[in-house]
Amino acid sequence: MANPSVTFSRVKKINPENISDAEDLLATEEPLEIRLSYGPLNDRHQKSISVTMRTPGNDFELALGFLFSEGIIRDQKDVLQIKYCTDFSRSENIVKVELMTGLDVDLKKLERHFYTSSSCGVCGKASIEALNTISKFKDNGSEFTIDQEVFMDLSEKLRAKQNVFEYTGGLHAAALFNTDGEIIFIREDVGRHNALDKLIGAAFSSGQLPLNRHVVLLSGRSSFELIQKCVMAGVNLVAAIGAPSSLAVETAKKFNVTLIGFLRDNRFNIYSGEERINMTRKKSASLAGI
Amino acid sequence: MANPSVTFSRVKKINPENISDAEDLLATEEPLEIRLSYGPLNDRHQKSISVTMRTPGNDFELALGFLFSEGIIRDQKDVLQIKYCTDFSRSENIVKVELMTGLDVDLKKLERHFYTSSSCGVCGKASIEALNTISKFKDNGSEFTIDQEVFMDLSEKLRAKQNVFEYTGGLHAAALFNTDGEIIFIREDVGRHNALDKLIGAAFSSGQLPLNRHVVLLSGRSSFELIQKCVMAGVNLVAAIGAPSSLAVETAKKFNVTLIGFLRDNRFNIYSGEERINMTRKKSASLAGI
Repeated sequence: MANPSVTFSRVKKINPENISDAEDLLATEEPLEIRLSYGPLNDRHQKSISVTMRTPGNDFELALGFLFSEGIIRDQKDVLQIKYCTDFSRSENIVKVELMTGLDVDLKKLERHFYTSSSCGVCGKASIEALNTISKFKDNGSEFTIDQEVFMDLSEKLRAKQNVFEYTGGLHAAALFNTDGEIIFIREDVGRHNALDKLIGAAFSSGQLPLNRHVVLLSGRSSFELIQKCVMAGVNLVAAIGAPSSLAVETAKKFNVTLIGFLRDNRFNIYSGEERINMTRKKSASLAGI
Repeated sequence: MANPSVTFSRVKKINPENISDAEDLLATEEPLEIRLSYGPLNDRHQKSISVTMRTPGNDFELALGFLFSEGIIRDQKDVLQIKYCTDFSRSENIVKVELMTGLDVDLKKLERHFYTSSSCGVCGKASIEALNTISKFKDNGSEFTIDQEVFMDLSEKLRAKQNVFEYTGGLHAAALFNTDGEIIFIREDVGRHNALDKLIGAAFSSGQLPLNRHVVLLSGRSSFELIQKCVMAGVNLVAAIGAPSSLAVETAKKFNVTLIGFLRDNRFNIYSGEERINMTRKKSASLAGI
């Protein structure tokens, strides 16, 4: 099987009635290094900026989505070339991104001071403020609504498209839907950040950013860093199968992002931005006092 | 409520029959910065080495578990003092670790070359080899077995002890069991790496390392980095509620760690080290040819 996203393994399966040997498919996990080449033509800098454990596949999207959501690149024209580095035997594990000459590259954005401010040291509020200074698409086009019924079968649509998860049970997914609840595309990875980076990188590469008339569906929980990536990509509506963290909700509120959690079994919770969810088909009695 | 691990939020709950407003509890997520102080008495260095998004609580354990599993500290005597940094208003988000004078501190271990070798650039095998050079407890005391029945109710025991998860649905957990399946302690966090760091830090602080006659149970999936931490702490048996990645299995095999996955609903899979699982109560017919 030539799919690099899955790996065969022998496994022993145990249950109260039976013990059996079987072949099992695992989600592949391998490191990916992202290297930047930047600076003026006569003085190019090379720098390795990240190693992430990822599932092979859509590596260029992963690199571009990461760079975009960290604020290093902002536009397709910022990238001259992206390719695998061929200096080593496992060349598919290193992606080299050539940035446009003259692009102002601030690698400090990648560092941990991102989360700090002079007054509080390091805290959630400083993290949100830092995001405020680098996000390109904030406060854009939030005037749409989606019928609540649309959400009820999103998680089933996601599962139906999760090819590798189907075999391995081991992958996170991020999926892009339009406002009618039709799936546009889906990306998978062992890391939930990577799955979202791949999705954003795919949208970046095809000129679809900002994603401000869409729903981004996350297969797991929502955290600050996932909402941060969505804010960078101009996403106004994030739905997650799992729970949000406190800072995910705080960040969503700050950037006027609708945040849905626990989207499963025909129910969901709205944590922020409920004005984008059209609830008019429901009995008005239950809306009293809201 | 004074518990810093949870945060109140207003939420709108939607299902096909009803829409209601409610109060919800979220898992708290805040950054934690770890700062090191090290070097000779007359020339101390201060360095911020990590910022992680974590759930407040057991912060010192988190810092110590992180430093231990990265190979920066190896023994309780390596740590002179650990305390919150009080220079800022949100001082509970910065932990300062004073290392013993004269301790050889190699911060390169924290960097990305960890995953690289000269021949392949960056790959899973290099990651495993790098772990081989820094692990303190490898090849120790693997001669014990655990009855398969012991595993069947571990996930229920975990769930029963997951206090914050119970309220928020938003936390990962790592739990330590003895070989009779009795829970020793549990740690929770929004990040699965953090939950395991807290667990290892707790064992480090109380002189319980290596954890070579125990089971470590992970609430989610197992990845390379989680198995890496377990190898560092001398854990011989790791069980996870979710799926393992390819590199998790490869690492477990290399270090002779028993790795169990999909431990739920009275069944589980063994991916490596099956000799530690006693299956003798089962019909021998199903074991034929193994």
